[in-house]
Amino acid sequence: MADLYIVGIGPGAYKSMTMEAADALSKCPVIVGYTVYADLIREHFPDKEYITTAMRQEEVRCRMALDRAAEGIDTAVVCSGDSGVYGMAGLILELLEKEARPGVQVKIIPGVTAALSGGALLGAPLTHDFAVISLSDLLTPMDTIKKRIRAAAEGDFSICIYNPSSRKRQGYLAMACRILMEYRPPETVCGIASRIGREGQQMEILTLRELEERSVDMFTTVFIGNSQTRRIGRYMVTPRGYQLSDPAKGEASGEDGL
Amino acid sequence: MADLYIVGIGPGAYKSMTMEAADALSKCPVIVGYTVYADLIREHFPDKEYITTAMRQEEVRCRMALDRAAEGIDTAVVCSGDSGVYGMAGLILELLEKEARPGVQVKIIPGVTAALSGGALLGAPLTHDFAVISLSDLLTPMDTIKKRIRAAAEGDFSICIYNPSSRKRQGYLAMACRILMEYRPPETVCGIASRIGREGQQMEILTLRELEERSVDMFTTVFIGNSQTRRIGRYMVTPRGYQLSDPAKGEASGEDGL
Repeated sequence: MADLYIVGIGPGAYKSMTMEAADALSKCPVIVGYTVYADLIREHFPDKEYITTAMRQEEVRCRMALDRAAEGIDTAVVCSGDSGVYGMAGLILELLEKEARPGVQVKIIPGVTAALSGGALLGAPLTHDFAVISLSDLLTPMDTIKKRIRAAAEGDFSICIYNPSSRKRQGYLAMACRILMEYRPPETVCGIASRIGREGQQMEILTLRELEERSVDMFTTVFIGNSQTRRIGRYMVTPRGYQLSDPAKGEASGEDGL
Repeated sequence: MADLYIVGIGPGAYKSMTMEAADALSKCPVIVGYTVYADLIREHFPDKEYITTAMRQEEVRCRMALDRAAEGIDTAVVCSGDSGVYGMAGLILELLEKEARPGVQVKIIPGVTAALSGGALLGAPLTHDFAVISLSDLLTPMDTIKKRIRAAAEGDFSICIYNPSSRKRQGYLAMACRILMEYRPPETVCGIASRIGREGQQMEILTLRELEERSVDMFTTVFIGNSQTRRIGRYMVTPRGYQLSDPAKGEASGEDGL
């Protein structure tokens, strides 16, 4: 019997991991992950066997992890952000469906995904209903991606965009912005957060029109405001809808009437 | 100068908090929150001044926190799950816009929201694009909620529903299910997660038709699968789209061709 932990390590800084995630990594002699993410945690969990593979080697990586766990060694697969949101939990469960590994117990540990860590950096862009969309068409037909951008726009969702760009996907974010501008004004408040919690962290608030012109890299998460999103000082805020009372007038709290 | 931390404490169990969140709570002599959430952390952070208020007293609570910070005392506002997603970060930034509090520095600490913690419990329901919708019409017109349910269905998003029910909102989840069944088959795989990481934790996987008949409480998060979501053993899984290789045939990894 061995445990296979699928661990969301959060955005990157050690302290932005949950205690449960850190405990799981401490317990496992073997840690498996994409090279970049393994490097983020290596110094905090030395004396482990690290098995790393390049991007797009997700299936190979997850099989390696399953093999080690099947040998009876507690193993952790690390995912940046959450273990579920565009993470490895789904793939591992699919692999286990195809090939049973008796004695391997899967334990899924969630983590702070970039929608939340980037949101905190920018203020509160996702306080109300929101949609999360990846622009990567490696595994998803572009028509599906476009359909979802339109649907999210029609529903007036705040939108958080993952994988907005890569070397092969220049121009996808601009395409998304142009679709969104069919539904929302070009002044719509947007935000970008890059390398959250890591060296070179950056954030910026800008309009949808400006975002269309911006080139971003694959370590960037993009936020598109809904019709109510405002800029407050250096923050991007989507109001929940509270009617704030005016303390100067001595009014009752705005919530009383709800 | 004092810090006002807005802290997402995760689903409830102490260990599901990030280290950064725990550090912030350790630092602050004053902790402000909804009674139920304050009680979740009290034993781990004793010797603090706790300021708690009932539900729907969000504005009162946030003003109390701002007042204490303005007095020069480091103060934390705790939110269940994330500090942003239906959390207090937005409200506090809106209050600061109306009434400046010189010397108060806002620090927003994200946390694992119920979409992620409930998702980990159920398997991997949110591996692909998803929408988060609250069914609470306290602050949002019902027409907006319905519009968003329809838009999310049209976009074939996996959907995570917050606040599916309350004493005054019986029947809202059934209404949402009926709208969704205009777009998705009644066999669509759904999941519910209740009291995540707390005493009485429960999860269940069921069909959209079964969900329509189910009564849930306000501590429940609901997951509606997209057209690809499947049940795998005791898990709910939305595939990312990997074409898995067949190891028996010695094929190359499915990712190679991407």
